[in-house]
Amino acid sequence: MTFITLTTDLGKNNYNIASLKGAILSLAPESQLIDISNEINNFDIVEGTFMLANSYKFFPKGTIHVIAINSFYAQKVRILLLQKEEYYFIAPDNGILSLLFENIENDNIRYYEYGNANGDLYTVIAKMIAEISIGKKSPEIGIKADNITKKIYLKPVVSGNSIRATVIFIDKFGNAILNVTKDLFEQNSKDKNFKLIYSPKNSINNIYNKYSDIPYGDELCLFNSAGYLEIAVNMGNASEILGLEKGSVVQIIFE
Amino acid sequence: MTFITLTTDLGKNNYNIASLKGAILSLAPESQLIDISNEINNFDIVEGTFMLANSYKFFPKGTIHVIAINSFYAQKVRILLLQKEEYYFIAPDNGILSLLFENIENDNIRYYEYGNANGDLYTVIAKMIAEISIGKKSPEIGIKADNITKKIYLKPVVSGNSIRATVIFIDKFGNAILNVTKDLFEQNSKDKNFKLIYSPKNSINNIYNKYSDIPYGDELCLFNSAGYLEIAVNMGNASEILGLEKGSVVQIIFE
Amino acid sequence: MTFITLTTDLGKNNYNIASLKGAILSLAPESQLIDISNEINNFDIVEGTFMLANSYKFFPKGTIHVIAINSFYAQKVRILLLQKEEYYFIAPDNGILSLLFENIENDNIRYYEYGNANGDLYTVIAKMIAEISIGKKSPEIGIKADNITKKIYLKPVVSGNSIRATVIFIDKFGNAILNVTKDLFEQNSKDKNFKLIYSPKNSINNIYNKYSDIPYGDELCLFNSAGYLEIAVNMGNASEILGLEKGSVVQIIFE
Repeated sequence: MTFITLTTDLGKNNYNIASLKGAILSLAPESQLIDISNEINNFDIVEGTFMLANSYKFFPKGTIHVIAINSFYAQKVRILLLQKEEYYFIAPDNGILSLLFENIENDNIRYYEYGNANGDLYTVIAKMIAEISIGKKSPEIGIKADNITKKIYLKPVVSGNSIRATVIFIDKFGNAILNVTKDLFEQNSKDKNFKLIYSPKNSINNIYNKYSDIPYGDELCLFNSAGYLEIAVNMGNASEILGLEKGSVVQIIFE
Repeated sequence: MTFITLTTDLGKNNYNIASLKGAILSLAPESQLIDISNEINNFDIVEGTFMLANSYKFFPKGTIHVIAINSFYAQKVRILLLQKEEYYFIAPDNGILSLLFENIENDNIRYYEYGNANGDLYTVIAKMIAEISIGKKSPEIGIKADNITKKIYLKPVVSGNSIRATVIFIDKFGNAILNVTKDLFEQNSKDKNFKLIYSPKNSINNIYNKYSDIPYGDELCLFNSAGYLEIAVNMGNASEILGLEKGSVVQIIFE
Repeated sequence: MTFITLTTDLGKNNYNIASLKGAILSLAPESQLIDISNEINNFDIVEGTFMLANSYKFFPKGTIHVIAINSFYAQKVRILLLQKEEYYFIAPDNGILSLLFENIENDNIRYYEYGNANGDLYTVIAKMIAEISIGKKSPEIGIKADNITKKIYLKPVVSGNSIRATVIFIDKFGNAILNVTKDLFEQNSKDKNFKLIYSPKNSINNIYNKYSDIPYGDELCLFNSAGYLEIAVNMGNASEILGLEKGSVVQIIFE
């Protein structure tokens, strides 16, 4: 049994996702398919990367993680295969892999092209999966991919005693997740006090472990299960209550 | 192969549900995961219970039903395991199990705690599933859970010749489902006529077997496949047409 | 392992779809279930047919495609079984099969009825699947179904040098898909130029292979992966930008 996850912007009511699943099961019938999300914003490779980055490690080693976001961006598209940390990652060559891993210059990334004799998108992805399923190693699959597309992740700006951070995701509960990892925060905090300013007159200055560490309806910061700094309201919708949206900028000052 | 169902409020576009699935497959790879729903209203253990109560019996005996709704309500959360009717139920200790089954005082409910050395929510749930998968019986798993949290389901008020009922769910078709089971209805009806008053000037006084027993666009009552009294409009949206919402109160009078 | 796809209007937050899945796994535990969509518009057998028609061939031969759309339309409903092109199709007798395949008059279509001793909808479908799973051939299952319900697909009107076409689906990206196949288009085009008029003052007169063949924000026509003519905007939402909705009519003139 091979586990295959799907992270796509294809939508839940769309025959494309079904066609992709069918093509995979036709060539690799011993697969179990798990949707990470098919509801990524259209073309939003950053959101897709974020979703996968926070979940891929929970899957069994050997899992194949397929990302199909903005997959139709050029006449001929290279579908990349990267073997890393005992997982496989299959994604179009539009920068997703460079967002997922900072340093892949020296990895032996492989590719197949679709839009030519190799067939459609679904078949190309399915073909790669089938080759992995029968035990081929990554370097035996497809062609070596040089000069893959690189994108820069939206990074927080660190200057002196402050971090200028951005909300990168609002979840179903309205929690606002920032592009600040626990590591980055602690490197800059050095156990000093801090003030997270999310609007001209409002700030938060404590980090808790759980939503329930404060009274119902109060706001807090915490590091979420993926290690990112999150602004939340206990039993409430932080996005609505505090006026935070995807893209909102907040200032963290250590003093 | 172990079947595992998931009923959560985590949302379809959220890495938490993927992380939970990955953790389960890592510790119990011979599992097949089936989503009952990941779109339960945030924190709404009543809706989650209703959804699971109406579907769990259709699954093969031995199925493990996981409920993860409002799972982060306290500093340390006990994850409960109940073996009942040849199924397994895993849920946080926030009242869900007491809503699902009226009498579990004498059941040997077990628990693991998360928020400490036992690891995160996903790992704790996955660990329980893995132990069940390798054949452990419920009493051999975790620690005996005394004093589990109890919640009272919103019950209809029966007085004299009437039942005061509440709409507990509106489905995708706009059907309004009441907190009245067929048993309760028949105990009070005793073959008398009835009038279900859903607005000051409007009532329904017949129960049919199928939507199609009446003309298109007409309203009716029926008992749905789960045995609950439902207000519907044949080929129409009862919620919109009749002005019924979750929480709306209707009066049933027998005469 | 038997692959079973589901195309339903039951909705993602509904115990009915879970009950159906549970019933199938109870009677045919060696199944893997794949959702094509549970978000088909209520009662919309045309949308459901379109979704399945464009994806069923990608699945492994032997896959059982279950369609449960508008399944409660009569007092007693016949659930049909059609074996065709090495696939199995299970659907209520409300015209879906006749939309999916133009000529099935001479096929040996079988049925079970629900709403009587055969049990509920879920059980009837699960029973058929179980019989297929243990190797029964279609003619050995159920009863021969004569006079199945037929529906006519909305066809484009071809007259002289023009085709009057209709938008049959808007996908998540806002692409508008017409009821015009590549075959029909080419039969009428005969390599002549064409003009696709989508509003009184606007038309498109070129077909491209990929969205990216034109500048960002420009409109184009192409044949999608399912072979249907599609109106799209490169990296944009054609439905919103061009004012196209499901049911909109466009004129294609060859000259």
